[in-house]
Amino acid sequence: MVENLGNWPISIEITVQWGDMDALKHVNNTVFLTWMETARMAYFEECGMMDTFESEKIGPILAAIKADFLAPVVYPDTVVVHTTISKMGRSSFEMAYKIMSSANGGELVATGSATGVMCDYSTGSSTPISENLRARITDLEWARLP
Amino acid sequence: MVENLGNWPISIEITVQWGDMDALKHVNNTVFLTWMETARMAYFEECGMMDTFESEKIGPILAAIKADFLAPVVYPDTVVVHTTISKMGRSSFEMAYKIMSSANGGELVATGSATGVMCDYSTGSSTPISENLRARITDLEWARLP
Amino acid sequence: MVENLGNWPISIEITVQWGDMDALKHVNNTVFLTWMETARMAYFEECGMMDTFESEKIGPILAAIKADFLAPVVYPDTVVVHTTISKMGRSSFEMAYKIMSSANGGELVATGSATGVMCDYSTGSSTPISENLRARITDLEWARLP
Amino acid sequence: MVENLGNWPISIEITVQWGDMDALKHVNNTVFLTWMETARMAYFEECGMMDTFESEKIGPILAAIKADFLAPVVYPDTVVVHTTISKMGRSSFEMAYKIMSSANGGELVATGSATGVMCDYSTGSSTPISENLRARITDLEWARLP
Repeated sequence: MVENLGNWPISIEITVQWGDMDALKHVNNTVFLTWMETARMAYFEECGMMDTFESEKIGPILAAIKADFLAPVVYPDTVVVHTTISKMGRSSFEMAYKIMSSANGGELVATGSATGVMCDYSTGSSTPISENLRARITDLEWARLP
Repeated sequence: MVENLGNWPISIEITVQWGDMDALKHVNNTVFLTWMETARMAYFEECGMMDTFESEKIGPILAAIKADFLAPVVYPDTVVVHTTISKMGRSSFEMAYKIMSSANGGELVATGSATGVMCDYSTGSSTPISENLRARITDLEWARLP
Repeated sequence: MVENLGNWPISIEITVQWGDMDALKHVNNTVFLTWMETARMAYFEECGMMDTFESEKIGPILAAIKADFLAPVVYPDTVVVHTTISKMGRSSFEMAYKIMSSANGGELVATGSATGVMCDYSTGSSTPISENLRARITDLEWARLP
Repeated sequence: MVENLGNWPISIEITVQWGDMDALKHVNNTVFLTWMETARMAYFEECGMMDTFESEKIGPILAAIKADFLAPVVYPDTVVVHTTISKMGRSSFEMAYKIMSSANGGELVATGSATGVMCDYSTGSSTPISENLRARITDLEWARLP
């Protein structure tokens, strides 16, 4: 199977809230992570990654997260978060994130990445990404290509 | 002066985030308060309530808040928050909030109210709402009337 | 049954975090609500209010919340939150909260109250507070009296 | 100058709150980042890193953050966060974090790191870490060595 990943199929828009700012009058660093999470969940929904969570107790866990902060964000603003699965292993996968500020003409304000692992919540151990899920992820990554 | 308040001139739209949900799988009660705050800040900006904060250290403080939760909100959804100043005293004012869920066809999911007091941050005591600000608030409340 | 409620049996200590402050350099109003929630959950655990949640899908929902902010809190600090059930109806109950700042010698910085309703999550409707739970709450309120 | 960094001089204890948990019934990943931030601020206070922020507009900005999640945390618990500056460059520095769960006998639940840059907030550009601050950081790292 030739995988064609890293095509940024999912983009979401999020309203910056006044309370997202901290005492330095910038949006707090943890809020960027919440935005990435919201984009991650939109991706998971689109590819069916959570479909087996209730029925089979199989779903992703977040093993690691990383963010680079390029420019501050202040209220009021709307950010756009783009996400993609950039790599799949047997049971783990890598996601990437780009966050743009609408107030600053689409300026890239942060990038990030996350490592997810498919996990059998009943045993607590990792489990392979199913062929079905693998295919849906690949489809999703291809679907929006020109 | 005949005041005509309580006309709900400000409405904002906010994306519900996955992380807004708590362990009971509903949006946590404190998030509704954050939404009200974002609407409050949009109102403050529109009527110039914060204009004297940097220059004269005069601005509003939140004295009390109240919320009634009518229906749960779950991710994904977009809420619309409406707000109005419903009453003005010499140095204090009352705001009201209505939160609607787009996923549930605009169902009213929460109402709330807040008491604000104009405060001189340099002395820590309350100060009258200026005639100028009072006029701008009244204008804003009238402006969107049919 | 003579009820003796409102005796403040539960107190918890919470570390104020830097990120709890907002752009006005005070702890944000919603954080006070989170502190009240943490105290509420400690109370619920102590009286067994959540014991029927997993097995019978019967548990409390938050119908309303109210807070009065008396003094600002800034990082670093540790707050102490006291809570009590002050009133019980057939299926609803009232809780009260007091928040004290350790940095300010125990100064009362906020008070609050909440209305909870016992709810059958499988039907979505209210259900009476069981005699057993009612007794445990009364016991808890009495237990720490001198 | 022989630097002796990475000695974990600062440790803080933080109460896990019920609302820190998300819909998967574990403490949400962003909360770990808030804990690291609280430890970071305690370190900054101890070494005087914020002392020049008000007077000279010189202070640290967070350029990057990274976290590895080793085990879930659930309410109720108290976490202990240890932090250290592990490396100093001309104007940037690296911090490391370890988070332990008290409920699980001190089990290591997450590790993390952050890159900070000293910044002149009036110009927005990086500025060297002063000799004075460099000395205080080195002292702090040495002070608690056996």
